[in-house]
Amino acid sequence: MAENGARRIRLGMVGGGTGAFIGYVHRIAARIDGDYELVAGALSSRPDVARESGKNIGLAEDRVYTSYEEMAKAEAARPDGIEAVSIVTPNHMHFGPAKAFLEAGIHVICDKPVTSTLEDARKLAEIKPKNGAKFLLTHNYTGYPLVRQARELVASGALGKLRVVQVEYPQDWLTEPAGEDNKQAAWRTDPARSGAGGCIGDIGTHAYNLARFVTGLETEAVSADLTAFVEGRRLDDNVNIMLRFAGGAKGMLWASQVAVGNENGLQLRVYGDKGGLEWRQDNPNYMWFTEFGKPKQLLTRGGSISVPPAASMNVRIPSGHPEGYLEAFATLYSQFAAVIRGEGADYESLLPGMEDGVEGMQFIAASIRSSQNDSKWTRLDEV
Amino acid sequence: MAENGARRIRLGMVGGGTGAFIGYVHRIAARIDGDYELVAGALSSRPDVARESGKNIGLAEDRVYTSYEEMAKAEAARPDGIEAVSIVTPNHMHFGPAKAFLEAGIHVICDKPVTSTLEDARKLAEIKPKNGAKFLLTHNYTGYPLVRQARELVASGALGKLRVVQVEYPQDWLTEPAGEDNKQAAWRTDPARSGAGGCIGDIGTHAYNLARFVTGLETEAVSADLTAFVEGRRLDDNVNIMLRFAGGAKGMLWASQVAVGNENGLQLRVYGDKGGLEWRQDNPNYMWFTEFGKPKQLLTRGGSISVPPAASMNVRIPSGHPEGYLEAFATLYSQFAAVIRGEGADYESLLPGMEDGVEGMQFIAASIRSSQNDSKWTRLDEV
Amino acid sequence: MAENGARRIRLGMVGGGTGAFIGYVHRIAARIDGDYELVAGALSSRPDVARESGKNIGLAEDRVYTSYEEMAKAEAARPDGIEAVSIVTPNHMHFGPAKAFLEAGIHVICDKPVTSTLEDARKLAEIKPKNGAKFLLTHNYTGYPLVRQARELVASGALGKLRVVQVEYPQDWLTEPAGEDNKQAAWRTDPARSGAGGCIGDIGTHAYNLARFVTGLETEAVSADLTAFVEGRRLDDNVNIMLRFAGGAKGMLWASQVAVGNENGLQLRVYGDKGGLEWRQDNPNYMWFTEFGKPKQLLTRGGSISVPPAASMNVRIPSGHPEGYLEAFATLYSQFAAVIRGEGADYESLLPGMEDGVEGMQFIAASIRSSQNDSKWTRLDEV
Amino acid sequence: MAENGARRIRLGMVGGGTGAFIGYVHRIAARIDGDYELVAGALSSRPDVARESGKNIGLAEDRVYTSYEEMAKAEAARPDGIEAVSIVTPNHMHFGPAKAFLEAGIHVICDKPVTSTLEDARKLAEIKPKNGAKFLLTHNYTGYPLVRQARELVASGALGKLRVVQVEYPQDWLTEPAGEDNKQAAWRTDPARSGAGGCIGDIGTHAYNLARFVTGLETEAVSADLTAFVEGRRLDDNVNIMLRFAGGAKGMLWASQVAVGNENGLQLRVYGDKGGLEWRQDNPNYMWFTEFGKPKQLLTRGGSISVPPAASMNVRIPSGHPEGYLEAFATLYSQFAAVIRGEGADYESLLPGMEDGVEGMQFIAASIRSSQNDSKWTRLDEV
Repeated sequence: MAENGARRIRLGMVGGGTGAFIGYVHRIAARIDGDYELVAGALSSRPDVARESGKNIGLAEDRVYTSYEEMAKAEAARPDGIEAVSIVTPNHMHFGPAKAFLEAGIHVICDKPVTSTLEDARKLAEIKPKNGAKFLLTHNYTGYPLVRQARELVASGALGKLRVVQVEYPQDWLTEPAGEDNKQAAWRTDPARSGAGGCIGDIGTHAYNLARFVTGLETEAVSADLTAFVEGRRLDDNVNIMLRFAGGAKGMLWASQVAVGNENGLQLRVYGDKGGLEWRQDNPNYMWFTEFGKPKQLLTRGGSISVPPAASMNVRIPSGHPEGYLEAFATLYSQFAAVIRGEGADYESLLPGMEDGVEGMQFIAASIRSSQNDSKWTRLDEV
Repeated sequence: MAENGARRIRLGMVGGGTGAFIGYVHRIAARIDGDYELVAGALSSRPDVARESGKNIGLAEDRVYTSYEEMAKAEAARPDGIEAVSIVTPNHMHFGPAKAFLEAGIHVICDKPVTSTLEDARKLAEIKPKNGAKFLLTHNYTGYPLVRQARELVASGALGKLRVVQVEYPQDWLTEPAGEDNKQAAWRTDPARSGAGGCIGDIGTHAYNLARFVTGLETEAVSADLTAFVEGRRLDDNVNIMLRFAGGAKGMLWASQVAVGNENGLQLRVYGDKGGLEWRQDNPNYMWFTEFGKPKQLLTRGGSISVPPAASMNVRIPSGHPEGYLEAFATLYSQFAAVIRGEGADYESLLPGMEDGVEGMQFIAASIRSSQNDSKWTRLDEV
Repeated sequence: MAENGARRIRLGMVGGGTGAFIGYVHRIAARIDGDYELVAGALSSRPDVARESGKNIGLAEDRVYTSYEEMAKAEAARPDGIEAVSIVTPNHMHFGPAKAFLEAGIHVICDKPVTSTLEDARKLAEIKPKNGAKFLLTHNYTGYPLVRQARELVASGALGKLRVVQVEYPQDWLTEPAGEDNKQAAWRTDPARSGAGGCIGDIGTHAYNLARFVTGLETEAVSADLTAFVEGRRLDDNVNIMLRFAGGAKGMLWASQVAVGNENGLQLRVYGDKGGLEWRQDNPNYMWFTEFGKPKQLLTRGGSISVPPAASMNVRIPSGHPEGYLEAFATLYSQFAAVIRGEGADYESLLPGMEDGVEGMQFIAASIRSSQNDSKWTRLDEV
Repeated sequence: MAENGARRIRLGMVGGGTGAFIGYVHRIAARIDGDYELVAGALSSRPDVARESGKNIGLAEDRVYTSYEEMAKAEAARPDGIEAVSIVTPNHMHFGPAKAFLEAGIHVICDKPVTSTLEDARKLAEIKPKNGAKFLLTHNYTGYPLVRQARELVASGALGKLRVVQVEYPQDWLTEPAGEDNKQAAWRTDPARSGAGGCIGDIGTHAYNLARFVTGLETEAVSADLTAFVEGRRLDDNVNIMLRFAGGAKGMLWASQVAVGNENGLQLRVYGDKGGLEWRQDNPNYMWFTEFGKPKQLLTRGGSISVPPAASMNVRIPSGHPEGYLEAFATLYSQFAAVIRGEGADYESLLPGMEDGVEGMQFIAASIRSSQNDSKWTRLDEV
């Protein structure tokens, strides 16, 4: 945290004007640990909205921009220019800003998925960032303390050789057709703005990334059955996928935006030949861990004698005092701040980055191709 | 229940000698509601075991048999002969007794799966039972009150048009190799006694049947990936399946015997365009029901004003007083007794029978074929 | 269980005519393990009801009685007379039959509370049963496997020296006034039939007995605040009690029949200086056990390597297959059958008996007196 | 939130030097919504600790103080002086700073309990704050969205006339004796620093305040039994209390620091003649609500058609994305900021203040007196 005397990172934001959801989340995440100061923004391409939004969050007038190109140029030129930028636009608007800021030597914090097409993702990955500018992809669920604990338990061998991975992410908010007036729904169900995947890109990638982050298993191939249940919807709203991992482990991934009664039910279950673990995002301060033949244990953020807290956790308050989604998000921000300051070497391998972004797009592309080919097993490296 | 003055049905049993698990369960199920009197048995083919087992459960010596053929013949000839028989042998030993007793005009209560091969199942289905003898397949999970409630909710349209079905049945008891001294494990992992499927036949069929019973959806095809994780095991111990139903609904089925931390985690979740429901076997007296846009409701056995208890429930005691596995099993027994007495017309469509048995075998066969063909979608009606 | 070749005990029943709740429960409990054969009954004092009820459950006509005195006399005289009797009448009708059958040398299984007054309980305790006839008080919650496990954990010292006991039993079925047509409610809210206590006698005693059974702590005194919330109700429907135990442990007991949303929420929590445990009746196959400084463990009926199943458990089926209220009740019946046959020495200390009955009445009397004296601490041995 | 263009409040802090728990929590709470800027502090009375702590959190050197008197004076004199101050010292050090800053016309945010003695609380309440300076007592649990919802449900009459209140707050961190090296434990178990109450002051008051906040019931009297279980401990570590409310409702309150297996188990249950609700702090985004005779409903932060979200909620992100302890705390801070700016009229009745502080001390004093008088019912207004 920035409570160690470290200076605050000067931050800008692209997207996230008044009324936007994820931009607001990023701003809170940037504030929680006090590592950033938001000083500039291209919050909207509409000048009036940009101005009003900038005023609302306290930006100086001369640092409110209406184009990210202009912002990248101007900020890079200022002696007190931003050191990092958060990109919180719809998916198809990630590539441009990410490229511009990286090439301007400004660190990038980008919402997921990294781009709207695999091709863009690969292009972005080939850019040589100026001055070693870093890239953070906000797969925020990896910031939960118990998710970190899960990863360390797997790595420690406590589960033995992994066999079975079950991951799911059901929601219900797109159960009915959504009009253009529902801003969040509108762009997510529009191929032009969201990319080729609907549910798979919006939340399927979160589920996939979570499974990969915790297990470390390399994915070999997917067999997918994607469906758009709501009449007239052009992108999938339900995703059934079987997974094969290197080394023989098998998995299933279910993501849905039409599963009535589920708000945000991300859940991961992993089983090896010695143990198993189970974690749910909607009550994220707890995780089940079972050693074969022994009773199930309920791990909490505080750890215990037999299972110490993961070294990588960013625990702010004692267990029993629940932390949530915003704190997990903030952990990515504050650990990335440490990386920017050159103090975060331990975090670099933990924080999701460009490589995860490209793999996420491969996962989407392979799943869509498999689904179009009657669920034929499709390798991630062949798309 | 038999507390209405109805006479008790005279019952026999094939298999279920001392030490057997499922035979013991059937006997308790037969006793709970007082509708049966167990009076004869071919509990073992080994004479000493048969005699000792018969004595332990109070059978008269002259009604302890060592062969089911002999038993069928002798009992059919007695004026006080058995009216029904429970078949609780390993899978490959279902066909013979079922055929013999049906042809002797004795009602059959048969553990699942109906046979060890689809061919046998079809042969059995073609038999003309003497005197209209009936057949009950003990897919016992269909006897849970909330499962009945779920079926009626779906049928009533409370969920709208169904879209998504998620069913799973994880266990962990076969996580490690099991020797021949583990009697339960030994036959279940032996193709000669269990049939071509391992986990899929033992518990996958339960999960499949449950989904079918509640949703009423017709299965079109399956895409399966079956695995034997434990070294040396000849039958699958983990089952990943995607399902396609007539009318467009999609599903996933996961069954596992190597998911550490799961004792008997059968779970069904069904989502339609108006509502969703979720039920778990390990806490079976509760079910989540959600109407889209309203809070989740926790239904109990007692029902409520807005959701009356299912007419088909066989509720013995007030809700809050948990009933369990044995009572659900007993409900099949007591409702089948009503059918035998000619008073159970309403139950006939509810109780699993020969048709369900054949379909279960089709499901197994199609899944195995799909898995052998790289998870190719395989129709149930093409196996 | 009676599956060991043991003969069935011949059983009679007093009370429990058609439509009664607890008599029906006792009959199922007597059937589950096959240790009893119900052959006689004084099911009602109204001849027509007695006859009809007897017929419904298959009693021979000559063993249907309309008075318990007559039944005790006649059955004691028959060579094939009943060996045990279940008393399932309202509380004020326990004393008479219990006395009559014990004095006739017939074992008694009596629903709780033992009588409707402490005076009666003490009188009953002074009777010398003929031929050493035994007495079982059906505090059925002590029959749950995990409750047995809890008792053994405490006795083993796994919790250390006990400090804190929290027990509660909320229901909501008497939230509104109940008319005489609600048979169950009518007698329970009538001092003449139920005794001086309402909620405290009906369910408070269950909670109290459960805490005593598990902890083994001797109660010193109670401070009670009893309330009748529903207008016109003559007996308490909500019970707040603080407890002091010998040795310094403290407790709280809450019982309510007006706690909307609670069906039958009996819960026990016990904490010592080394560990704690928590158990709920509405999901009775699980229990939390925590060693101080370690993660919470979820114990199941099956036990585990570190916490073996309680020797006293009467486990019928593998864990994960839920057993419930009826099985716990049946365990009392089958273990009492073993006692009757002279094979149940190990069970005698476990099964609730006359002493527990008297103490339960002391608990009720002391609580009522305390409540009448502005919650003054009142010793159980001074009432 | 401050994202509406409102200026940030200049904030100071008394206590909360490096290593302190609750000061850190207050700082995060002040940051989350961006309504405050921390610019001054008397973080410690030890000059070196004060300087180091101030540097760590980015204070200018000339605004690091070692005495609150000096700080109040100096800041009140600066044109850019602090407008509000957070007091996060041990209990016995609340009175002095609160008085000093209120008299200097600086708004006070004070951790609970308001003081260490009732006498001090009353003195503080009599102070006339300069320029109408406001006072916030951080009973942070009142900031949880579902707690606000609970309060509005009760006020709306959805539960009918209240009858029963059950509130509890079990922890286990003081199960064993704590040495002086455990800073958090040391002052909390020391009468000189903590006040006359131990567990009752630390967490009992939170439980009491929560019950009062949600129900609005006026407390008449308490009957208490306080215990110090750990040898050598001078203050209570377990609190059993019965409550009587005006209008006839009854309650129980249990707080414990020795309940092994409980991290921070604050729980409130409220029952009226029409409905009931149940909420737990360790999974705070959910609340059970039951209308009598209908199924239990699981309310979430998002509300629903039938139960709209409480107007007073400060919901940042969609339900399903858990918010926690820090967000609830932050809600008090941001709504108090609105009050300071003159825009928070609606919040004034919601935010805990001086009156709640005095009542909390009355509750403590009455409970201690009752416990010393053998649990005699003691009125809050007679201490």
